[in-house]
Amino acid sequence: MIVILKENYDKEQLNSLEKWLKSMNLSMQISNGFHQTVLGLVGDTSGIDEDLIKALDIVEDVKRVQEPYKKANRKFHPKDTVVDVDGVKIGGGKFNIIAGPCSVESRQQLCLIAESVKKSGATLLRGGAFKPRTSPYSFQGMRADGIELLLEAKKLTGLPIVTEIMDLSQLPLFDDVDIIQVGARNMQNFELLKALGKTDKPILLKRGLSSTIDELLMSAEYIMSGGNSKVILCERGIRTFETATRNTLDLSCIPVLKERSHLPIIIDPSHSTGVARYVKPMALAAAAAGADGLIIEVHNDPPHALCDGVQSLTPDEFDDLVKRVRAIEPYAIKYGRES
Amino acid sequence: MIVILKENYDKEQLNSLEKWLKSMNLSMQISNGFHQTVLGLVGDTSGIDEDLIKALDIVEDVKRVQEPYKKANRKFHPKDTVVDVDGVKIGGGKFNIIAGPCSVESRQQLCLIAESVKKSGATLLRGGAFKPRTSPYSFQGMRADGIELLLEAKKLTGLPIVTEIMDLSQLPLFDDVDIIQVGARNMQNFELLKALGKTDKPILLKRGLSSTIDELLMSAEYIMSGGNSKVILCERGIRTFETATRNTLDLSCIPVLKERSHLPIIIDPSHSTGVARYVKPMALAAAAAGADGLIIEVHNDPPHALCDGVQSLTPDEFDDLVKRVRAIEPYAIKYGRES
Amino acid sequence: MIVILKENYDKEQLNSLEKWLKSMNLSMQISNGFHQTVLGLVGDTSGIDEDLIKALDIVEDVKRVQEPYKKANRKFHPKDTVVDVDGVKIGGGKFNIIAGPCSVESRQQLCLIAESVKKSGATLLRGGAFKPRTSPYSFQGMRADGIELLLEAKKLTGLPIVTEIMDLSQLPLFDDVDIIQVGARNMQNFELLKALGKTDKPILLKRGLSSTIDELLMSAEYIMSGGNSKVILCERGIRTFETATRNTLDLSCIPVLKERSHLPIIIDPSHSTGVARYVKPMALAAAAAGADGLIIEVHNDPPHALCDGVQSLTPDEFDDLVKRVRAIEPYAIKYGRES
Amino acid sequence: MIVILKENYDKEQLNSLEKWLKSMNLSMQISNGFHQTVLGLVGDTSGIDEDLIKALDIVEDVKRVQEPYKKANRKFHPKDTVVDVDGVKIGGGKFNIIAGPCSVESRQQLCLIAESVKKSGATLLRGGAFKPRTSPYSFQGMRADGIELLLEAKKLTGLPIVTEIMDLSQLPLFDDVDIIQVGARNMQNFELLKALGKTDKPILLKRGLSSTIDELLMSAEYIMSGGNSKVILCERGIRTFETATRNTLDLSCIPVLKERSHLPIIIDPSHSTGVARYVKPMALAAAAAGADGLIIEVHNDPPHALCDGVQSLTPDEFDDLVKRVRAIEPYAIKYGRES
Repeated sequence: MIVILKENYDKEQLNSLEKWLKSMNLSMQISNGFHQTVLGLVGDTSGIDEDLIKALDIVEDVKRVQEPYKKANRKFHPKDTVVDVDGVKIGGGKFNIIAGPCSVESRQQLCLIAESVKKSGATLLRGGAFKPRTSPYSFQGMRADGIELLLEAKKLTGLPIVTEIMDLSQLPLFDDVDIIQVGARNMQNFELLKALGKTDKPILLKRGLSSTIDELLMSAEYIMSGGNSKVILCERGIRTFETATRNTLDLSCIPVLKERSHLPIIIDPSHSTGVARYVKPMALAAAAAGADGLIIEVHNDPPHALCDGVQSLTPDEFDDLVKRVRAIEPYAIKYGRES
Repeated sequence: MIVILKENYDKEQLNSLEKWLKSMNLSMQISNGFHQTVLGLVGDTSGIDEDLIKALDIVEDVKRVQEPYKKANRKFHPKDTVVDVDGVKIGGGKFNIIAGPCSVESRQQLCLIAESVKKSGATLLRGGAFKPRTSPYSFQGMRADGIELLLEAKKLTGLPIVTEIMDLSQLPLFDDVDIIQVGARNMQNFELLKALGKTDKPILLKRGLSSTIDELLMSAEYIMSGGNSKVILCERGIRTFETATRNTLDLSCIPVLKERSHLPIIIDPSHSTGVARYVKPMALAAAAAGADGLIIEVHNDPPHALCDGVQSLTPDEFDDLVKRVRAIEPYAIKYGRES
Repeated sequence: MIVILKENYDKEQLNSLEKWLKSMNLSMQISNGFHQTVLGLVGDTSGIDEDLIKALDIVEDVKRVQEPYKKANRKFHPKDTVVDVDGVKIGGGKFNIIAGPCSVESRQQLCLIAESVKKSGATLLRGGAFKPRTSPYSFQGMRADGIELLLEAKKLTGLPIVTEIMDLSQLPLFDDVDIIQVGARNMQNFELLKALGKTDKPILLKRGLSSTIDELLMSAEYIMSGGNSKVILCERGIRTFETATRNTLDLSCIPVLKERSHLPIIIDPSHSTGVARYVKPMALAAAAAGADGLIIEVHNDPPHALCDGVQSLTPDEFDDLVKRVRAIEPYAIKYGRES
Repeated sequence: MIVILKENYDKEQLNSLEKWLKSMNLSMQISNGFHQTVLGLVGDTSGIDEDLIKALDIVEDVKRVQEPYKKANRKFHPKDTVVDVDGVKIGGGKFNIIAGPCSVESRQQLCLIAESVKKSGATLLRGGAFKPRTSPYSFQGMRADGIELLLEAKKLTGLPIVTEIMDLSQLPLFDDVDIIQVGARNMQNFELLKALGKTDKPILLKRGLSSTIDELLMSAEYIMSGGNSKVILCERGIRTFETATRNTLDLSCIPVLKERSHLPIIIDPSHSTGVARYVKPMALAAAAAGADGLIIEVHNDPPHALCDGVQSLTPDEFDDLVKRVRAIEPYAIKYGRES
């Protein structure tokens, strides 16, 4: 961390700062330029709150050199994390396709779709039981019953299941769920993240609509600092001024995340674009750029889906997508270091 | 709601749509232009999910005419809502100033600040007990103990207290809190909103960093649809590309919200700017534009605050701010209709 | 265009509106719902200014159904535009790679790079002669001399050249340039667009940092409405809150633009990411998603480039990129309709 | 400027860097931490291109300490700039109101509005002769004739006039114009800025839709580095995800700009909100926050304005706005240092 002092700083205050830094196991190096005095803090600064230092009378600005995340940081963990989900390996060069309906609607619907996506080559099954909806008047999901149906679909197809938790109080219902999804709106629900950090479940952590890549990694750090290192990151679009797509899919997060972190990265082209016919090109783009997988909404009858039908692929479209993605995979960028 | 059909739409499907709309108590009017056929849905469309209709094969686009919120909507409730907080009235032309430290740190700190802000003219006391922090390694608040101290400070000063809830499970601790704050990161924590809708506590609902004004109103609607109409809206900055301030304070939300809704609006210039010396001009601007109040961070010793000291005013600066705001108030824009 | 009237609109004013619409060769259809009266304007509304109608006392809102662009619109021109640049065809299924240095620095530098990128498979040569720089104290380009050197490099390699115009007054210098580039900052320099619309030069039109996809198409329409239909669109990143990359490359613009327009689309991963090691994954992603080509910065000695070295590939890196892109091409999404 | 080196940097390359810095009249101080080596560049770094240094093999990151603008920088010019416009003083504590129609439409319209706004207390007259319009099919302004009419209106009322230049080639027509406005879309039209830097005309420089505050100051620096120090800054809204207003008016730019620069700041609430009934609250807010003035659109007959009628005030509304602004002025924030 680099601290830039104001022009006529008080030397007494600088001494106080140095003492405090020592108490935090940090040392301080001073560089005197003509215009400005600059301090370099030496040691582990991840526990230091930048804003505390910025608030000091003698400080003009503070600039971080070292990233504030440690467990999620590639620098300290150069090898790719591979998350084992009931035998399915995510990360480290394997490419997984998670597919299924936006919402679980009925046994029949779910099983039909589950069997179909499995046949096409999906490796995990997704389906929403608890649904975060902008309007209190919209369908809110089948909740506990939805999770039961997902477990039945797992029994039928063997596909591990991924479903979203919306509140800490629902955690006991997720005992048999294979991957717990934390939605974009909950990416900074820190109490939830802490609780998930104490489980040993794989977590699919979606990036918030207005969250930076570093904030996503800090949220992963919350989970990991609790002891759970099975975190899978997921990009699902950020909010920008463009309205042609629901959100703007930030695919450049792939090389950035691969550089900064060892965690696997899954791309969600369904929620980010919000339009079924834009899903396929974005899925291929993600694969080419070296993502570790995709999460795709598939529905047997999109026009009658109770939620987000507008962005769901039909089973046939999904089948074609998987074929194309598998064809492109050998030529995709590889980032992995041996794990 | 207006539905624009594709050029060569299937008439059978249009019949199906009409039947479904009838089952939702809506009727449908057809307008045939040269280029496009347009349907007008007549009736209460607030329960209709736009995306369901957009997903239909025959539909090109859907445009909402009627707002999707009802209880928060000025059209259906023309009079200003006035929230009574232990005798302090928020909304309807009264201007309130909520002040206090970012975090509760100790009895001494809190009482000192509480007495000081009361003397300067604050009408409510704020203080964080549960603190949402980006880093798991930062100070996380005094939690339950912090609420105890707030209640002591209330006893001492008579000021009603405002403090933030971070998770549903903390709700029992808020029994004696006067206003429960929902932070920006929780604005779309729908399970929490639903639970708060079943209490009769005033709720200070902060706008999410990437939430539109209409989404803020939809979140208010979540609380109100549960039966709790005591919602106070709060703007605290949105995330944009500009980095000179922590966030961009969107003061134009004041006239927009006053037009669309009857709920009171409080402005938070401390968190939005993130810099103490920008707080005063933004506070005055908010007052002039006709906000119903301010929420301001004040600390007796900003450089030693455990959290957000960089944006806290000293008691003296706060005292000057209140004087200026009170001077400007008579000339501010008034929106209120009699309540 | 759909016009939603206020609840108690004045009938006289509606009559005036109808007369005015007739004078613009539009007719008007009225649909009376319970809550709102809605007008449908029938005819060619591309010449109608939405805001003029919104300003009327009787109008609550206006919603466009028909796009405001005609010549750039796929609806009216279903076949892909193919721009012939001195024998090189851009659009219609061909994939082109434009490469070269950010700035022309010297004859030696340019010729070295030009020969190298040609050998690797580039089909056009880029190089900045006039350089838009944020600081007046930065290198501003070789200007007219830079264009001379580009023409020499064309003679040497046979590669058609692309270079940026910064002001109308420079147009005479572009007589022998093959493609005139309009930079992101000039996307809405309407006087320049009008002048280029009267030439018969191919124009590479870059999307502005804060321009929507529809605004990009409106700027293309400016050029095309003057008579020049040789417009090539270019996405080079939009400005968002994310700072890990210089801008956020919006690859979902590819399927959106391919749907709305018949013009070719080139992707610029160099300027959008601003970091050389992110260029390759984004280039592959763009190819997979079905772009018509790439524009890539290549420099023989990036650390000593006078401009933007941080984002330039070395000739070896570029060579590898071309190989990978060519391998991925056969599996990429195809949108084209026969031209 | 602070340069952070990679862990195992090449010492030879560091020597080369030091030599090059010396040739630029900069010296270099090295600070060796445990994790990173950090260089401090000492001297005038405003002419140094950050990206050049970032591109070096040995460099991990570069952070600016000193602002890249000098002539626009408050640090080097602590006193407020006051621009004298034909006797009207802008900046230094005076509050000016510029008013007039969006477009000049006819002699009668312009003179009517000019006399009316003068009576209400406007101190300068605005009116568009050259109009930047998103659509080539919209009204493009009266151009040279519009300037003639503005000069007539000046003769009639004595109000100095402000009008927008769209292209360098139009400059000769602006000989008698008092303030030349550079629109948001031209904020980074560097050729135009350079040319205006060689005139001695006051320039009203509008902030681009996606431009940071520092980029606005860099554009001012372009003009000032040419010799023309009469620059007036103008905030007119930035582009964000919020669509309730046309753009988001960033009023916190006022204290930021007042801190970083000595140039006057004018706020445009008409273009930023795009809605007449939001103009008054935002105008009052701007005044309270300490802006140096406002620029407001006024039209005698908004529903029939040829451009932007939806955001224009009637003369009566404007008259009320001026009264309120004048009442609030004495209580507004003051930043000025004696000039």
